Amino acid sequence: MYFCDVRSKLLNHINSPKELRLLNQKDLPQLARELREFIIDIVATKEGHLGASLGVVELTIALHYVFNTPDDQLIWDVGHQAYGHKILTERRENFHTNRQLNGISGFPKRSESVYDTFGVGHASTSISAALGMAIASKLKGDFKKQHIAVIGDASIAGGMAFEGLNHAGVTDANLLVILNDNAIGIDPSVGALKQYLTNVKKGTQKQDNIFEALNFNYSGPIDGHNLPALIAELERLKTVKGPKFLHVITTKGKGLKQAEEDQVKYHAPGKFNAKTGDLNIKTPIVEPPKYQDVFGHTIVELAKTNKNIVGITPAMPTGSSLKYMMNEMPDRAFDVGIAEQHAVTLAAGMATQGLVVFCNIYSTFLQRAYDQIIHDVAIQKLPVIFCLDRSGLVGEDGATHHGVFDLSYLRCIPDLIIFAPRNEIELRNIMYTAQLGLEFPIAIRYPRGRSLTIDWKQPFSKIEIGKATELKKGKNLAILSIGSISKNVSEAIEHLNVSHFDMRFVKPLDDKLLHNIFKSNTTIITIEDHAITGGFGSAILEFAAQHNYKNTIKTLGIPDQFMDHGKVDELFKLINLDVNSLTQYFSEFA
Amino acid sequence: MYFCDVRSKLLNHINSPKELRLLNQKDLPQLARELREFIIDIVATKEGHLGASLGVVELTIALHYVFNTPDDQLIWDVGHQAYGHKILTERRENFHTNRQLNGISGFPKRSESVYDTFGVGHASTSISAALGMAIASKLKGDFKKQHIAVIGDASIAGGMAFEGLNHAGVTDANLLVILNDNAIGIDPSVGALKQYLTNVKKGTQKQDNIFEALNFNYSGPIDGHNLPALIAELERLKTVKGPKFLHVITTKGKGLKQAEEDQVKYHAPGKFNAKTGDLNIKTPIVEPPKYQDVFGHTIVELAKTNKNIVGITPAMPTGSSLKYMMNEMPDRAFDVGIAEQHAVTLAAGMATQGLVVFCNIYSTFLQRAYDQIIHDVAIQKLPVIFCLDRSGLVGEDGATHHGVFDLSYLRCIPDLIIFAPRNEIELRNIMYTAQLGLEFPIAIRYPRGRSLTIDWKQPFSKIEIGKATELKKGKNLAILSIGSISKNVSEAIEHLNVSHFDMRFVKPLDDKLLHNIFKSNTTIITIEDHAITGGFGSAILEFAAQHNYKNTIKTLGIPDQFMDHGKVDELFKLINLDVNSLTQYFSEFA
Repeated sequence: MYFCDVRSKLLNHINSPKELRLLNQKDLPQLARELREFIIDIVATKEGHLGASLGVVELTIALHYVFNTPDDQLIWDVGHQAYGHKILTERRENFHTNRQLNGISGFPKRSESVYDTFGVGHASTSISAALGMAIASKLKGDFKKQHIAVIGDASIAGGMAFEGLNHAGVTDANLLVILNDNAIGIDPSVGALKQYLTNVKKGTQKQDNIFEALNFNYSGPIDGHNLPALIAELERLKTVKGPKFLHVITTKGKGLKQAEEDQVKYHAPGKFNAKTGDLNIKTPIVEPPKYQDVFGHTIVELAKTNKNIVGITPAMPTGSSLKYMMNEMPDRAFDVGIAEQHAVTLAAGMATQGLVVFCNIYSTFLQRAYDQIIHDVAIQKLPVIFCLDRSGLVGEDGATHHGVFDLSYLRCIPDLIIFAPRNEIELRNIMYTAQLGLEFPIAIRYPRGRSLTIDWKQPFSKIEIGKATELKKGKNLAILSIGSISKNVSEAIEHLNVSHFDMRFVKPLDDKLLHNIFKSNTTIITIEDHAITGGFGSAILEFAAQHNYKNTIKTLGIPDQFMDHGKVDELFKLINLDVNSLTQYFSEFA
Repeated sequence: MYFCDVRSKLLNHINSPKELRLLNQKDLPQLARELREFIIDIVATKEGHLGASLGVVELTIALHYVFNTPDDQLIWDVGHQAYGHKILTERRENFHTNRQLNGISGFPKRSESVYDTFGVGHASTSISAALGMAIASKLKGDFKKQHIAVIGDASIAGGMAFEGLNHAGVTDANLLVILNDNAIGIDPSVGALKQYLTNVKKGTQKQDNIFEALNFNYSGPIDGHNLPALIAELERLKTVKGPKFLHVITTKGKGLKQAEEDQVKYHAPGKFNAKTGDLNIKTPIVEPPKYQDVFGHTIVELAKTNKNIVGITPAMPTGSSLKYMMNEMPDRAFDVGIAEQHAVTLAAGMATQGLVVFCNIYSTFLQRAYDQIIHDVAIQKLPVIFCLDRSGLVGEDGATHHGVFDLSYLRCIPDLIIFAPRNEIELRNIMYTAQLGLEFPIAIRYPRGRSLTIDWKQPFSKIEIGKATELKKGKNLAILSIGSISKNVSEAIEHLNVSHFDMRFVKPLDDKLLHNIFKSNTTIITIEDHAITGGFGSAILEFAAQHNYKNTIKTLGIPDQFMDHGKVDELFKLINLDVNSLTQYFSEFA
């Protein structure tokens, strides 16, 4: 077949940038075509992030062609766009293992390759990291080394990117910031900066621009799919000293018609037909809903009767399913962009005026707004409702994205209620309860993916704050679970005569019930989809110490280590939280 | 006396902005003089933040004169500058209790006054909060209400301020951001934005500026000490719809010669002579050093022999004492401005290149960089050395500034070493140890204020990672302390036959020693200058549970509530961590 031959012609001989740099410049467009097809072919069957990498194929080639990687240091912000980079830097053969257990990571990762100079995953870190490297090079007397941060227009709006630019602008560091401007993150970019960039592109904004104001040597905008233009400009910038800023315009999903046309869906499209581009639409089977959709539909339902409800998401309208509310009630649902800090304090400001604010942030991203939860919400006892989607192990996104620290970092905050639903009905009911009015803020943590109950849309019922629930009566051994891992426990103890409690609230604990449990059982086992250090289990240990209980207490959860990527089930198995391992473990105590 | 008469003439009759607004505009300069003197008189004897409030006397009067506070909502970013605001809003009579136990707070605080629309303390929150209020007003159908954020040029460079501006610029919210530009935070402002603002002031930067680019209606710069100009401009802005930005130039310390001339020292000068402005220089007595100075001098000492050492502070060169290194080795010590997130990731970037990075951030401000510690440092096992100054109770700054959550939020992070020195020699030695090279990042927490050892500058000795130390041998009861509260314990047990261990490392724990302790004592008491929820005590509980120890364990620390302001000793007494209370408590178990 013609295509196969063509494909093998160039890309198959490029194992590293060293070989790439031996190519004639006129061959690069051909390499770009091959690289794009390679990405499409593999992501079509193995899944992953598609659109971002297709958009930077030419930029990736140009960067490795012009710069002397890995000596010159290249950082991809977030890293969704780094598939081409991985393929060109010694990982073509392993690329089919992308995001799989023991396979390569979906993100650049230092331990995986010398070409991955800085591990990424969360947005807006690249400028700070590259600046740190650039300053280090200078201190070590290396004035030639280049340091390049490639950052998207959604990520550059994150506050820490501004902090990085603001510092870089007063240094003479050898730093090149490349703005990969495709007007979209996972969802379309928002904010005044995005509008401004659009005006720059249209020529309605003068060149004397924000980045020049911050003391960067600005150039662009240039067409990011034009290899000769990219290479010429990068060659020129290599000779410019100090902080430089190149504005590159690209199209997310470039080269696959459907991906260009529906950029949100093709950000990470799941399986699709590599030839036609069509998505692999599964036969519609009746499945329990995703937790995120339970959130998304329920907030709309509640907001119809409670006019004070508003919703906030930092750049995750699709991922959080707040998009349903944004569509139905656009004036009451806010996508504030990649700005978790702002999202939380905005919520606090709204709450001072009596609005009932649902602030939906992935557990791992809420780490970005930790101070704001304490300082702007909890100290003031503002009853903001935090919905922590993607709590627990998230699977293929790996170490940077697991939401496994939230209980530890939230539990120490006074006056904060912490709840984890074991299923979607509980999620609905706690949302219902919270919007009725609380005296304190609440954090509701729920996992990625689907839950249990097909018939989830039940009438609302109020949950008493701090009230746990007994799921199974038994003897001697009491298992206390929190959140959706309750499912594994229920299956594991099907044939065991032990009791099982869904504690629901990590804070406040159900003291009354706990006294009963400690008095009527010799052994207590806690289990959580969360780090065991400082989490729910520790809350139970603290209760026991406070009240002088001497029961045997075992705490199960995620061990004190960063968990890599893999399917959630595979990861659970690795740490003995799968049903079989649990059955075996519980049997020893039952 | 003439001055007394003048003073009583206006200010004594202004209890709230209502009375202020009855004054004739021509009387306002007189009121400004009186207000300034009032602030100077009280701060001179009662201590507090001087310079910032003196700088905004006219702005404060103008804002309350023009706007209908508290219906119109006014937020002071950080709040150091809000003394005049407090005095004019029903707190003149109580102002002498500023920052004292049971007195008024040094910062605006919602529970204290309806005029304090949003609690502040940490920088850069005001724009987000005011925008939240402005959006809420619109949703509630109130299109007249004004929402004003007053933010300094140091604070506006913080990332979350940019996030707020970026969002506000695409709304039609009735928001006025006032930039109080005095070119200084606590220390002089840094960064490209500061340079830019200086150019705007000099007229060398066009009006088509950053804030206009972000879609704000920009006006200024105007003289912030010119009352008629301020009032006229604020009156005009009241009629302008949508996001507005007013650039005001002020002089920090205005009206007190020494405070204008030495703005850093007079930020919070301690006691001084109200008439002459001279600082109250204490008779030089030999005292133990402040922890911050031990850090500041020791990093210089170490950096002289270890060429890879660099230091980073986000806007606290004076407070952290990194200024000593900035003076001696300006190319290796970095003040990055109010940018904790950037500071941490910059440190990570530098560490990838083999630099030995001391990143000094107050415990309470490290909350701003929580995600960066996990995502950019710990996951990559980069051996950044975090120095957490102002850990534990900080005293008069109160709830927003106590550094009492760090052990809980850090302890769950895999691969992070956590150490707390009990005195300055231990601080020196752990700094020495860390710069020799570690495989993991380390967090070193130490308190505000002075320590114990006058003769602190001892030769360095290496500390074994994870190794605790026995301070006193005793029987049955073992007290395990962490950090500087060890001092209270030592005094409390002087006459008790109990043992006392300084555990030093919260992570990793000294397992070997702990096994001995648990085997040879019936009761264990842990004590820490930190929240008991999830802190050091919980680490000991986790150890005990893991190894099936059934000893009685009591955990002492800060109860699960936000602690208000007051002297550290007073606060310790409130929560029974003072020497007397401890003696009594320990005696029950001894």
